[in-house]
Amino acid sequence: MQGVSYGSTVVPVRWRDEGCLELLDQRVLPGEKRYIKCIDTRQVADSITKMVVRGAPAIGIAAAYGVALSAKRNRQLASEWRARIEADIDILAATRPTAVNLFRALEQCRNLLPELTRDEAFEQLAKLAITIHQDDIAGNVRMGREGAAFISARLAARGIDRPVNVLTHCNTGSLATGGFGTALGVVRSLAAEDRLGMVYADETRPWLQGARLTVWELTQDGIPVTLNVDSAAAHLMKSGRVDCVIVGADRITANGDVANKIGTCSLAVLAKYHGISFYVAAPLSTIDPDMLHGDLIPIEEREAKEILSLQGKWISLPGVEICNPVFDVTPAELIDGIITESGVIAAPFGEGIRSRFG
Amino acid sequence: MQGVSYGSTVVPVRWRDEGCLELLDQRVLPGEKRYIKCIDTRQVADSITKMVVRGAPAIGIAAAYGVALSAKRNRQLASEWRARIEADIDILAATRPTAVNLFRALEQCRNLLPELTRDEAFEQLAKLAITIHQDDIAGNVRMGREGAAFISARLAARGIDRPVNVLTHCNTGSLATGGFGTALGVVRSLAAEDRLGMVYADETRPWLQGARLTVWELTQDGIPVTLNVDSAAAHLMKSGRVDCVIVGADRITANGDVANKIGTCSLAVLAKYHGISFYVAAPLSTIDPDMLHGDLIPIEEREAKEILSLQGKWISLPGVEICNPVFDVTPAELIDGIITESGVIAAPFGEGIRSRFG
Repeated sequence: MQGVSYGSTVVPVRWRDEGCLELLDQRVLPGEKRYIKCIDTRQVADSITKMVVRGAPAIGIAAAYGVALSAKRNRQLASEWRARIEADIDILAATRPTAVNLFRALEQCRNLLPELTRDEAFEQLAKLAITIHQDDIAGNVRMGREGAAFISARLAARGIDRPVNVLTHCNTGSLATGGFGTALGVVRSLAAEDRLGMVYADETRPWLQGARLTVWELTQDGIPVTLNVDSAAAHLMKSGRVDCVIVGADRITANGDVANKIGTCSLAVLAKYHGISFYVAAPLSTIDPDMLHGDLIPIEEREAKEILSLQGKWISLPGVEICNPVFDVTPAELIDGIITESGVIAAPFGEGIRSRFG
Repeated sequence: MQGVSYGSTVVPVRWRDEGCLELLDQRVLPGEKRYIKCIDTRQVADSITKMVVRGAPAIGIAAAYGVALSAKRNRQLASEWRARIEADIDILAATRPTAVNLFRALEQCRNLLPELTRDEAFEQLAKLAITIHQDDIAGNVRMGREGAAFISARLAARGIDRPVNVLTHCNTGSLATGGFGTALGVVRSLAAEDRLGMVYADETRPWLQGARLTVWELTQDGIPVTLNVDSAAAHLMKSGRVDCVIVGADRITANGDVANKIGTCSLAVLAKYHGISFYVAAPLSTIDPDMLHGDLIPIEEREAKEILSLQGKWISLPGVEICNPVFDVTPAELIDGIITESGVIAAPFGEGIRSRFG
């Protein structure tokens, strides 16, 4: 079984070699801790759409395992097995539009497919998924160290030589990745090096990834966390409680614009106004060097009930018009550094991004 | 019975001349429409603390009626009646710290008290409360017209000659006032003059005044409204859906700094960044000319459960550390105009405020 967590006790994605993907159901945390078992692609696609699993790197990983499950299911088919796997890749690609990691992982699977015989397809695609999964964790760990060192040095240069207070948004930890975290990976590294003060976690409406997932995950791992409503960020910054903001990303374009959970752009504007550094932590797999700028990123709008009801109860007027974009785009000009597993990319980002993609 | 609503069908505060205050219970809207009956001061104080009634002008009005109820209850006492009323005024003053309208209304009651005989106290204090209530509504109506004319003219000067799309925060309508509204009063006036496009209502965590109250109130009165999570404001502004932001206020200091619902400062910073006008609509009773600047305003922090649970269900990890300031302070430099019943005060605000307070 794969699921090593490298310093996190939270295991979001488990793979059983016989061909079963187990996903920690993020819809019911923290009240309930249960795994959903997926033995075919449609179950994985459904789990991504319904947010059993969420977070850009995690859905890429889940999708890769989903392709392996397709190979297992179709291995009895003499001639059509490859076409069936390709069709399943299309199904997985149609689950969510914004995060690029999903499409990258599926592209890797699609590229491998022509090289495979029917007999080895399941084993080889499972191996690829495991590699993507393990590389994500290993990359996160490097990213965490890079980010922690960079942020400490930056703050030290400004005369701030005490544990760092971080504001973050959504969940970017083990639950959003292979099992360590992007922005929360940096937080984990700061904590491991005794350089972390407090994590302020935005609750992150409407899905409450902060209130439900970040708070739970950090508490599991003994990392100090304080929960606040999203709109309290300005007050926290103004009152001096925040040294820097660190967020994750769902897609980063060639110029350094960042699509991330709705509310991220707001934090970046507020950080700039209050003179606080704003960092994005993301693996290179989140960068889309072929997309020129953020206005081109498709922004997912989700259904009204995510805002209008909670745990099955109405919290507003049923039937009212809603606007529910679940991502926004933060302009590169507001970002002080993009923390990756291959170092921190500084502004202007275009060059640093180009150099990493040859 | 007092409760005329001048164009709003929503009546938040009703007074019965025999000595009964009826408050529309804002904790259970929009699911349930019920009035809480108060026949003594403690019930009124409790209703303010527990947010049966909320909104700076509305709690000032409710408190004034609460003093009248004290006069009724104590009118049998030969010598102590006045001291008892003064003690009840102190109880009402201790309910909530941030909105200044509460203290202004109670000050008016306290100033009237020495002039009253025991026999006339109830009647005269009730009359004062009714006057405060009616003046608030009349002032709101004037404020609405002033604001609508000012905003239309400003947008016309920028070449925007179509119905105005307004983003607002919290609830500043009939429910927050005597029965018309401050920021929503301006919206009502725009709507009455066919100059309103869409109202984008922030849901306003943690108490969901936007999702529960604004959406309900505007729908009751046939005014178009779209609900969004608080953190979507930047995305709405960037995508051109918002022409201006109008919010209310709980206290405005001599220099024009504004305390208002948590999240207001964030909107002001975002509006500035996106080149969108940001207006505050508030009666003169919300201005505290004796307080020099916003850092001096006491900011209420409320209990953890307002964030951690909703309708009795946990939405986060019980026991986690929380930070729940329910107001923030918007610096005057971010405000493009303060709309009052005696015209729109332009920046720099100090002079305009001084001129209105002699």
